[in-house]
Amino acid sequence: MTTFSLNQQLDNDCVTLGLFGSSHLLLYNNSLLPWFILVPPTEACEIFDMEPEAQQQLFAEINHLGQFVDREFNTDKVNTAAIGNIVRQLHIHVVGRYEDDFCWPNVVWGTTEKKPYSATEIQSIIARLTTKAEAHFQPASEHMIN
Amino acid sequence: MTTFSLNQQLDNDCVTLGLFGSSHLLLYNNSLLPWFILVPPTEACEIFDMEPEAQQQLFAEINHLGQFVDREFNTDKVNTAAIGNIVRQLHIHVVGRYEDDFCWPNVVWGTTEKKPYSATEIQSIIARLTTKAEAHFQPASEHMIN
Repeated sequence: MTTFSLNQQLDNDCVTLGLFGSSHLLLYNNSLLPWFILVPPTEACEIFDMEPEAQQQLFAEINHLGQFVDREFNTDKVNTAAIGNIVRQLHIHVVGRYEDDFCWPNVVWGTTEKKPYSATEIQSIIARLTTKAEAHFQPASEHMIN
Repeated sequence: MTTFSLNQQLDNDCVTLGLFGSSHLLLYNNSLLPWFILVPPTEACEIFDMEPEAQQQLFAEINHLGQFVDREFNTDKVNTAAIGNIVRQLHIHVVGRYEDDFCWPNVVWGTTEKKPYSATEIQSIIARLTTKAEAHFQPASEHMIN
């Protein structure tokens, strides 16, 4: 068992929301789209190199998160991808898309248009996860509401 | 049970290789990269909207195909994605990437550089699937070698 350490670039670009199942759940800090990233606790760079049980767990998390994004953000399509050409730490993008969003119908990767979230907007997303995905989501301690 | 019908754009852009598990296996007709596409027999546009058993089956296929691409094409990274902004029929890209390929480290979606396969190259890929992924792959009848 090794300690989880988040890649520096992911840490710079995202807000850590908490745990989603056993994965770390990040919010890519661009309020133009509901763009989430799952980072499972593994040293494998490819899902097919993970242990079978961990793969199953991750696939379930991807599904639950995709469903949450689709239902809660009323998206037109969910884009799901494991790319990792630049950041090798295994991470899975789950991005809600709209037919009138800033880069539709192209993919979001490689785009630069960006609008960071306000603290209130982040709290609102955490509140939605806490109420609507309560079986899967555990907020990070800094986001806990006492 | 409905008859499977392949989206016209996928049909235009790809060669149907056969079945991989229960999904149709396509080869995107660009020999610059080992770019495969799985099309599961479903009317759902999102994996999370498929029946649980079909989801499990598809995830297993994605893993087996990713492993095949990685091992057989000796790739540096495998990019796996369900996007579907343009073609809504559910399809999953499994793309082998190299650190010196034509669009590294960017994603392949949206690129236009292309070199179609020769018939011999396609037969060679089918032969590799038949010998190295024999538990999963069933060539389409037009590719069967008598």
